[in-house]
Amino acid sequence: MKRSLIVKGNFIFTKDSEKFEIFKDSYLVVKDGRVDGIHPQIPGEYNGCEVLDYGDRIVIPGFVDLHLHAAQYLQCGIGMTKTLLDWLNDYTFDLERQFQDREFAKAVYSEFAAKLAAHGTLRASVFASSSTEGTEELFDALKAQGVGAYVGKVNMDRNAPDFILEDTAASIDGTRYLIEKYGDDPLVKPIITPRFAPTSTDDLLKSLGDLAVSKDLPVQSHLNENRDEIKWVQSLFPKSRHYSDVYDQHNLFGQTPTIMAHAIYSSEEEVALAQKNKVFLCHCPDSNINVRSGIMPVRRYLEMGMNLGLGSDIAGGHRIGMNDAIVRAIQLSKLRSMEFEGEKPLTVSEAFYLGTKGGGRFFGKTGSFEPGYWFDALVIEESPFVRERYSLEDRLEKFLYTGDDRHISARFVQGNKL
Amino acid sequence: MKRSLIVKGNFIFTKDSEKFEIFKDSYLVVKDGRVDGIHPQIPGEYNGCEVLDYGDRIVIPGFVDLHLHAAQYLQCGIGMTKTLLDWLNDYTFDLERQFQDREFAKAVYSEFAAKLAAHGTLRASVFASSSTEGTEELFDALKAQGVGAYVGKVNMDRNAPDFILEDTAASIDGTRYLIEKYGDDPLVKPIITPRFAPTSTDDLLKSLGDLAVSKDLPVQSHLNENRDEIKWVQSLFPKSRHYSDVYDQHNLFGQTPTIMAHAIYSSEEEVALAQKNKVFLCHCPDSNINVRSGIMPVRRYLEMGMNLGLGSDIAGGHRIGMNDAIVRAIQLSKLRSMEFEGEKPLTVSEAFYLGTKGGGRFFGKTGSFEPGYWFDALVIEESPFVRERYSLEDRLEKFLYTGDDRHISARFVQGNKL
Repeated sequence: MKRSLIVKGNFIFTKDSEKFEIFKDSYLVVKDGRVDGIHPQIPGEYNGCEVLDYGDRIVIPGFVDLHLHAAQYLQCGIGMTKTLLDWLNDYTFDLERQFQDREFAKAVYSEFAAKLAAHGTLRASVFASSSTEGTEELFDALKAQGVGAYVGKVNMDRNAPDFILEDTAASIDGTRYLIEKYGDDPLVKPIITPRFAPTSTDDLLKSLGDLAVSKDLPVQSHLNENRDEIKWVQSLFPKSRHYSDVYDQHNLFGQTPTIMAHAIYSSEEEVALAQKNKVFLCHCPDSNINVRSGIMPVRRYLEMGMNLGLGSDIAGGHRIGMNDAIVRAIQLSKLRSMEFEGEKPLTVSEAFYLGTKGGGRFFGKTGSFEPGYWFDALVIEESPFVRERYSLEDRLEKFLYTGDDRHISARFVQGNKL
Repeated sequence: MKRSLIVKGNFIFTKDSEKFEIFKDSYLVVKDGRVDGIHPQIPGEYNGCEVLDYGDRIVIPGFVDLHLHAAQYLQCGIGMTKTLLDWLNDYTFDLERQFQDREFAKAVYSEFAAKLAAHGTLRASVFASSSTEGTEELFDALKAQGVGAYVGKVNMDRNAPDFILEDTAASIDGTRYLIEKYGDDPLVKPIITPRFAPTSTDDLLKSLGDLAVSKDLPVQSHLNENRDEIKWVQSLFPKSRHYSDVYDQHNLFGQTPTIMAHAIYSSEEEVALAQKNKVFLCHCPDSNINVRSGIMPVRRYLEMGMNLGLGSDIAGGHRIGMNDAIVRAIQLSKLRSMEFEGEKPLTVSEAFYLGTKGGGRFFGKTGSFEPGYWFDALVIEESPFVRERYSLEDRLEKFLYTGDDRHISARFVQGNKL
């Protein structure tokens, strides 16, 4: 039997990045968790159906975070004067070690999952740590919140401190165990997660690629974030043509759906390969500047029609709210527009698209209110002064720039109110 | 009779920008609202004195915001795809008009003042609108909150829509009225506030400069924010050597204590003049990028030992919390450091200094816990996970990056708890 729900409000979303679709004072019909349509009045056949009336409030698709590290959540905003590799060594690895303690993992991941949902991130692709038990706690914490996610046990078998490394076999065994345990979950699923090329042997990458292909599992990792990192990859994998090729040779670059975070310094050849293989590139603006990596050429990727989303990159980024990532993406694109003549900054609809439907496409029909899309939604609270004075588009922009979890009063995932 | 108070906690502040002064588990003695000293134990003569024990919490100086527009508060985060002059015409001027309505002004300014205090800004130099009555409401709202501020009625007699312009005499009369009414207030005082050179006739600037000098009042305005603006100033004031000279010729450039916001494109000669005249330059990082102005060369000004502070620049900037301004100043300095080889990014202590003592010097002995400074202070709340794991300096950095008003549990201005 189909379960129906009607939501009343002002609906704003992006079908395409170029502009907002706006349905003022409308009724959105949800059937079995998916959008059926948006109407000026309740269609006759739904008379008597449950109506959630949000009055003059704005309702938008839930945010989608394509890249963040749950095991770095406590470290947000700490050590921000370091660059990437020093920051990992001085702060990150030791914190990730602590997630071998199951109680600690449970406590921190519960807080993390609650904050994620509170800030309106209803789908996320998350790195845990190398601990299999710790990662189980992250699966469970996200399931308890009711959000959708891909969760990756971090695979590493070299070039990190011993206390967070595993040998190749143990790393693969733990990954297999989590796939068995959570592979059939409808909302929180496993994703193959080599941390990045430098912390993986060829053997590990080969086994992970085989696993991804044989089990039809998605993949996430890091790519071309920092010039020192790129040189290091070249020296560790001398036979590869470039960084992307390391992953590609091992069936970890779009052979199954793949997210690569950063892609700041990808060469023409690498960008072409990512496009051909339909790899999702993930822009993490706060992280790009916090660890002084550079700024992703988002405008170029958008114009090419690449698969593209946004990430908070907790804890290279420091704010878990994707509205902040959307704003920072706009801000950084403005800086690029001042540096590179003719490169237009991101519009609000373009950045919003990246933080909703752009990344949402990795999760299927997610991040939009077009018919057939999952009803993942946020209800926005505003001051009466603002509601009275500004257009719906202005009001949404204001929420993105100045809002936080207190401005979200209801959250829906697949039609279920959290 | 001297009134004493003892505060227990972890005190962090910047005497100089180079490093934090840290007093762990210490007792700060407040006498008549000013810091008397910080001690490892309560000095004998204060036994029996009232002690406020904040345990393991961090206590820092209150934030100082050297530049923001209270009449633009509702507009935060709206119209952010515009550049400066379009943004003023399309959004700002009409909103400022509405502050001629006393009831509206009272309602909005009360919310503004409450938010300012909630986010820990305990001293601010604020633009109101051109309405004298509206500006009275801002004085009253800030006084009611108990924070310290300079408040300026905005003087404009040309080059803005008629509905917010006054003739020169009316603009001066209104300013004189406010000086009479609030000139003796201990905490919320008037400041001479020509909006910026282009909206002022020579006559208005001359009258304002005379008023500043004769009544010994401080001055605030805008300077060298945007290249179009600079050309416009040159065409309006063809006899001036440069933008700064327009103010200087009219006794509005350091003849009394002066804040100039932005100073992104100041020439060598202008910077030298600002330094000679001890003008405070105010860096507004979010605004710099939101309206695509450019980035102030903060490192250079710091190295020159200029008077320098930070501003939220509500509503060119979108976040009222000065912790966000501190973080954005660091982020933008990192971008400059990637563009200009050898230009070091701001350290945490340097940016913190700018948002506390750097700007605080405009208000006298404010923004530090050195003996003789006003005890303007914030008590910071953190998660136990963070308190247990990180150093005091790391914990402060985390608050700056990830905190908001919910992480401030107590506020003191001149020793009085708000």
